[in-house]
Amino acid sequence: MKISFLGTSAARPTTTRWLSCVVVQRRGEFFMFDCGEGTQYRLLQKKIRIWHRPAHIFISHLHYDHWGGLFGLIASMSLEGRQQCLQIYGPPGIRTLFLSLVKLVRKENFPLEVWECSPGLILETTEYRVLACKGTHGIPTLAFALIENMRSGKFYPDRATALGIPKGTLWGKLQAGKTIQIEGRTITPDQVVGPPRPGLKIVYAIDTRPNKHIKELSANADLLIHDATFSRMQQSRAEETGHSTAYEAATLAKRAHVRQLILTHISARFRTDEILRNEAEEVFKPSRVAYDGLTLLLPPNE
Amino acid sequence: MKISFLGTSAARPTTTRWLSCVVVQRRGEFFMFDCGEGTQYRLLQKKIRIWHRPAHIFISHLHYDHWGGLFGLIASMSLEGRQQCLQIYGPPGIRTLFLSLVKLVRKENFPLEVWECSPGLILETTEYRVLACKGTHGIPTLAFALIENMRSGKFYPDRATALGIPKGTLWGKLQAGKTIQIEGRTITPDQVVGPPRPGLKIVYAIDTRPNKHIKELSANADLLIHDATFSRMQQSRAEETGHSTAYEAATLAKRAHVRQLILTHISARFRTDEILRNEAEEVFKPSRVAYDGLTLLLPPNE
Repeated sequence: MKISFLGTSAARPTTTRWLSCVVVQRRGEFFMFDCGEGTQYRLLQKKIRIWHRPAHIFISHLHYDHWGGLFGLIASMSLEGRQQCLQIYGPPGIRTLFLSLVKLVRKENFPLEVWECSPGLILETTEYRVLACKGTHGIPTLAFALIENMRSGKFYPDRATALGIPKGTLWGKLQAGKTIQIEGRTITPDQVVGPPRPGLKIVYAIDTRPNKHIKELSANADLLIHDATFSRMQQSRAEETGHSTAYEAATLAKRAHVRQLILTHISARFRTDEILRNEAEEVFKPSRVAYDGLTLLLPPNE
Repeated sequence: MKISFLGTSAARPTTTRWLSCVVVQRRGEFFMFDCGEGTQYRLLQKKIRIWHRPAHIFISHLHYDHWGGLFGLIASMSLEGRQQCLQIYGPPGIRTLFLSLVKLVRKENFPLEVWECSPGLILETTEYRVLACKGTHGIPTLAFALIENMRSGKFYPDRATALGIPKGTLWGKLQAGKTIQIEGRTITPDQVVGPPRPGLKIVYAIDTRPNKHIKELSANADLLIHDATFSRMQQSRAEETGHSTAYEAATLAKRAHVRQLILTHISARFRTDEILRNEAEEVFKPSRVAYDGLTLLLPPNE
């Protein structure tokens, strides 16, 4: 999976941090988390060609800084002649927002589906699923987890050869989990294939206080993208405004046993990453602070 | 006056041209013409500090690429703690657009006035006025002229001295247009003050075919900012979509006796300015093609 941070600011953007947006690319399919103003410009800059591709857009909540780029994106998809369906998921109220706005910006050349989601399973395919849980932000807010299904185990050609199985159809059958017969012997897949490998899991939880739902959703995630609008110097401000400190995000990451934490939704008061990074690293070493343009490649788990 | 081009693309932005916006600064007051998506980012980049200043925003029409940045701008003004009234002017329908949107983005910390305008005088102060006229674009569209009042004439100190008038209050009175008495003589202002000087006139006409209203509105303008989405190679496309070619914009500029023409709302098909600039210059030499970041200083007329 390729993860691109297109906007990493809190509600007030700066010259270097724009409003929230993260894009995950997986096998030619796009998953966008929030869509702040200017997202279409960042997509052009980063040459992320979403225009005609399968795409799911997840909106955490209906504050402007999280959806302001949606309508420009849809307008440009229209002008590009998109025909693919576009799927949008968000909290209750997102359909009303769409009804008033989308007719202003869109030609009818592609289908648009808008789903008002409750916590739980919100999307499932044969390859992955997306779960949502409640954030804590004063208005209905969702955190999301994109979870790949288990992949089949690693195939060991040397073991197959040692068992006298010729390369070809039979290897394929074993790899696919089927038992085979050869020269009167029965060979089961576990003799040549390792145990199933876990898929990747990415969690997106911004504009929220840390809470138990997010901790549960994040369990063993490969990547947690979490709100860190503030440092612990602004603890009471974080509580008042429904945001998190870097310390709180790192504590949750540690308790949920995630592999890697990326802090985002950074207040304009922080001119450098240092304070937030140090505060998070004290608790949870594999932490970093996002910036606009940060791209990560998450290889499949082995 | 200082004129900043913040967005110069047609409906489909590129990596270098964003959606329409021009800002005119005059004596601490701001006049914004259209407000495409990302305007607030450009304001930050160009250090144009509109946040707490008197500001008038003129929206030419209700296609998304001309107002998509308005709500982010208003949201950020709210977060900045603006208290000044913000005035917005546009064609019929703009109030409805606002009612559905502005409540989603704005705290109530500053007054917001939204004016649905007809062609004619839409704003007048002791220093300037703004006129609107009809554009030709398929939906209600306005072109705007910002016209400064005449300034008083140039004062000639040497003439005053030659007439034996001592520097001081009497000079001030003559400059202000008053007749004075000195040693039994009557001195009239025209003896020491030149003729009144014309104020500046700027016209903004984009997303439109050239038409007679715009030609009249542009008469003798110091600066005409005009749609040139296309070149004459795409004449029929310009006619179909309610836009202009560079050739048509230059022809109108010449006939209206404007001083300077700037072409904007440039289609993404033009990778360089060359075609449009050459086409315009053939007809009207003082033409140029806008780019995002172009800033002009128009000195007062003498």
